[in-house]
Amino acid sequence: MAALERGELALLRQIRARAAQNPLGRGIKLGIGDDCALISLRPGEELAVTTDLSIAGRHFRLDWHTPEAIGHRTLARGLSDLAAMGARPVAAFLSLGLPRELARRGAWMDRFLDAFFALAEAHKLPLAGGDLAESHVAVADIVLMGAVARGKALLRSGARAGDLLYVTGKLGGAVAGLGELEKLAGGAKRKSVGGLRIPKRLETALAAHLYPLPRIAQGLWLAQRGVASAALDISDGLSTDLAHLCEESGVCAEVNADSLPVHAGATLAQALHGGEDYELLFAARPDARVPQAIAGVPVTRIGTVMRRRAGRPMVTLMTARGAEPLEARGWEHFA
Amino acid sequence: MAALERGELALLRQIRARAAQNPLGRGIKLGIGDDCALISLRPGEELAVTTDLSIAGRHFRLDWHTPEAIGHRTLARGLSDLAAMGARPVAAFLSLGLPRELARRGAWMDRFLDAFFALAEAHKLPLAGGDLAESHVAVADIVLMGAVARGKALLRSGARAGDLLYVTGKLGGAVAGLGELEKLAGGAKRKSVGGLRIPKRLETALAAHLYPLPRIAQGLWLAQRGVASAALDISDGLSTDLAHLCEESGVCAEVNADSLPVHAGATLAQALHGGEDYELLFAARPDARVPQAIAGVPVTRIGTVMRRRAGRPMVTLMTARGAEPLEARGWEHFA
Repeated sequence: MAALERGELALLRQIRARAAQNPLGRGIKLGIGDDCALISLRPGEELAVTTDLSIAGRHFRLDWHTPEAIGHRTLARGLSDLAAMGARPVAAFLSLGLPRELARRGAWMDRFLDAFFALAEAHKLPLAGGDLAESHVAVADIVLMGAVARGKALLRSGARAGDLLYVTGKLGGAVAGLGELEKLAGGAKRKSVGGLRIPKRLETALAAHLYPLPRIAQGLWLAQRGVASAALDISDGLSTDLAHLCEESGVCAEVNADSLPVHAGATLAQALHGGEDYELLFAARPDARVPQAIAGVPVTRIGTVMRRRAGRPMVTLMTARGAEPLEARGWEHFA
Repeated sequence: MAALERGELALLRQIRARAAQNPLGRGIKLGIGDDCALISLRPGEELAVTTDLSIAGRHFRLDWHTPEAIGHRTLARGLSDLAAMGARPVAAFLSLGLPRELARRGAWMDRFLDAFFALAEAHKLPLAGGDLAESHVAVADIVLMGAVARGKALLRSGARAGDLLYVTGKLGGAVAGLGELEKLAGGAKRKSVGGLRIPKRLETALAAHLYPLPRIAQGLWLAQRGVASAALDISDGLSTDLAHLCEESGVCAEVNADSLPVHAGATLAQALHGGEDYELLFAARPDARVPQAIAGVPVTRIGTVMRRRAGRPMVTLMTARGAEPLEARGWEHFA
């Protein structure tokens, strides 16, 4: 960590005080305060590592999103990657670049940290380190480490022809919620750092966008039982993420439009292409026993994995009108 | 990793192609391309983790620093933290936020990556993952993982009264070099992204600032032999970093001005307070055998660790004029 200015030092103290309220996990030998954190795994475990960079104007907007939503979403993105590997969360590292007015406004950071630590605690995840600096643009880089039994990680590359495809939860809710937020922003009289006030009637419609729930328990369940042949999280949208799975596994796939679990308030197109749902998409052998719900979250069979063949599109959508190629049109955030 | 725009995708391909030129280290089971990277340690090893956030205008300037210098310095900051723990580099994760004009200008990134990978290869360090996005301000967050035998990490907290204090290399060269760069910038006719052209006569004077060498071999040597009772790297300046060591160890310290290894072209004040030298500062028991050089880098004894006592300053500077308190005045970069 580099030399800090006065505003940064105050911020550092604020974060350290909050991190100290959480006991360090058993895997963390040394947390914030030395040159590195020290982490030890149980014998036979491997470490899963993910980094997610969130930038104001690209992944969130300071005038739209409350500090709580930004804190939650920053961590949820990383947790969802751990879920997609079937990893148990072990340690978080948070690097923050904040505009001076936010760095010096303790209340904004308090609210950001409230939501960040609430989600971290729900997954027994301690903050083991990070860095911070003043920056003209708000940025947050979240680095998460998880543990997974050697050889048990859920990869994108294991799907084979004949496997069935499943998703957890409902799809399209996050992008539908973002649409509502956009409308709310359009009607707002003044825009300010701190985000929009969400009226009570919209809280449910916006929840999937503002407070997505990473599927850690579901990923652990799949990895521990060896049920999934391949898995990833739906961060870019089903059409894009399924194409990733097909590419890494060297297969094609067919999705049944009628069987998609479309989120209340979302359209079929939003369920197909909307990103940031953070549900899990996984493949399983046809004889695998996949339950209708895992840890309270419904699991829906949505399609089939097929052999690659010349002329066959990577992903085919089956509708009442017949078969059509499903193009990867991942959600572009605030592009 | 979130959905990417066209410019980001091109950038991602560029980085992946470069990373693929380096074979993955033995500890990396899975690199770029899945939801997480997978890392495995040897039995009996712990993982050391460090994150360093570099932001344009704060840690570097696009109009002063060449892409090579920014790439080198970004990685060197993290490597120096691993050196300070006595850890063997295992994996790097790089999150980049780049302004559109840089993201789309392949040549800038090529030069950044040239220097980044040159330093990484020198330490057998593979790039295992990261994230990227377009950003109005250039930011680079480097996350490094290293391995260290359980219980052998060099901590800040082990120094005891009577220990002797040592530093590797020379001090003050980085801040003296930065001063030369500032002068050069003041005389420059036009400023542009891409950095200042460094005239041949200044290359040596600027090297300590532009291309600092992290002391990985020296840290490994100290940790493996159990020679150091405490250690950290001098990133904020000797006065500040020695105060950190004293604080974490619960001791005071005395430094002899005459024995400080002042870098050619630097002043005593620069050696005392200049940051970013990335040398190691360590304590060792008085009967420890500390050589005059470790892996080709000189080691200099600079002072003594003392008991804490009421009224005694944290750090005392001994000069020909007598004893005076040494205030922590760490370097403030471009504040």
